[in-house]
Amino acid sequence: MPSDNLLKQIEFIKEIDKLKYIQRKTRLLNSDRHENDAEHSWHLAMMAIVLAEHSNEPVDILKVIKMVLIHDIVEIDAGDTFIYDAQKNHSNTDEERIAANRIFGLLPGEQAADLIAVWEEFEAGETKEARFARSMDRLEPLLQNTSNNGGTWAEFGVDYNKVYGKKKVIKMGSEAIWGFAEMLIDESVEKGILKKNV
Amino acid sequence: MPSDNLLKQIEFIKEIDKLKYIQRKTRLLNSDRHENDAEHSWHLAMMAIVLAEHSNEPVDILKVIKMVLIHDIVEIDAGDTFIYDAQKNHSNTDEERIAANRIFGLLPGEQAADLIAVWEEFEAGETKEARFARSMDRLEPLLQNTSNNGGTWAEFGVDYNKVYGKKKVIKMGSEAIWGFAEMLIDESVEKGILKKNV
Ligand SMILES: [Ca+2]
Repeated sequence: MPSDNLLKQIEFIKEIDKLKYIQRKTRLLNSDRHENDAEHSWHLAMMAIVLAEHSNEPVDILKVIKMVLIHDIVEIDAGDTFIYDAQKNHSNTDEERIAANRIFGLLPGEQAADLIAVWEEFEAGETKEARFARSMDRLEPLLQNTSNNGGTWAEFGVDYNKVYGKKKVIKMGSEAIWGFAEMLIDESVEKGILKKNV
Repeated sequence: MPSDNLLKQIEFIKEIDKLKYIQRKTRLLNSDRHENDAEHSWHLAMMAIVLAEHSNEPVDILKVIKMVLIHDIVEIDAGDTFIYDAQKNHSNTDEERIAANRIFGLLPGEQAADLIAVWEEFEAGETKEARFARSMDRLEPLLQNTSNNGGTWAEFGVDYNKVYGKKKVIKMGSEAIWGFAEMLIDESVEKGILKKNV
């Protein structure tokens, strides 16, 4: 008979399949197709692996990878929150915390507590691993929007100041990547795909 | 100006977005929707994290995660190879090796060599990390097919012996997970969604 731990882990593995259905506002590179949270999380993990050398401080890369792989799992229950949505504040809503407890709670006790702690650390954004992980989460949609004629900026009328404000989080994780991001933002203004005042 | 390394890494990050378009034969749990390679890779990484305790030998989990995150990237050029395809042998075809060199080759030299080595190690399946990673790759479609009335087994007339032969790779990575997998396979025969002789 499979152990109790294994059966719980299998239930969790089945449950998180639902992340593949959570659609983001952003679209794939040079594409009309919306990205889902599972492929988004995969992409961030790959980015963390190849960009680790640019972190402002040396990071525990395994922890960063875990953070980006699990950071959106709560959206299975709570739904995707659009970063430029003024109504709904993204950080650690009650709804997301309840979701974390339910979904990670499918795992054996210690493992559940571990992953909830990793998720909380990512959300709080205060450790060097969380700062670097969050910079990955901000960089990916920047690459997408610049490849899609402004993407969600154009679609939802988001202007330069809002973008600059949100993207500055990258600087906390990596000055080098922030330098690149600023260049992309400036180019977007020059190309007219990001407006200074909407 | 962004460093040469950073620009190369960004090119690689953009290129691998294409993995989100590579469609597998298997479908999501309880679903008609085909899975793509990026979300598949994310799922395997999550499985590796939560199932690590069941590995036959203690593994370097960071290496296992890297393996499963990158194992299908060559399919951007070489396409998905169906595991029960008798015509096309999956392991390390020339086409896949050329793809690995092209795609990982977008990265700075040392990083490219590192990731190609990780991919080769996964393909060879001889280290404990590769064995555990490969057991994840075999387990996920088993969960999918059993949730989908036989899924690709029914669709492509794959019988018990073929399934058993391919799935036995799980045992090399984890006796405990193999015990669970055998139970699922036996149940599938009892339910009539996997045929003893087709
Ligand atoms: Ca999100």
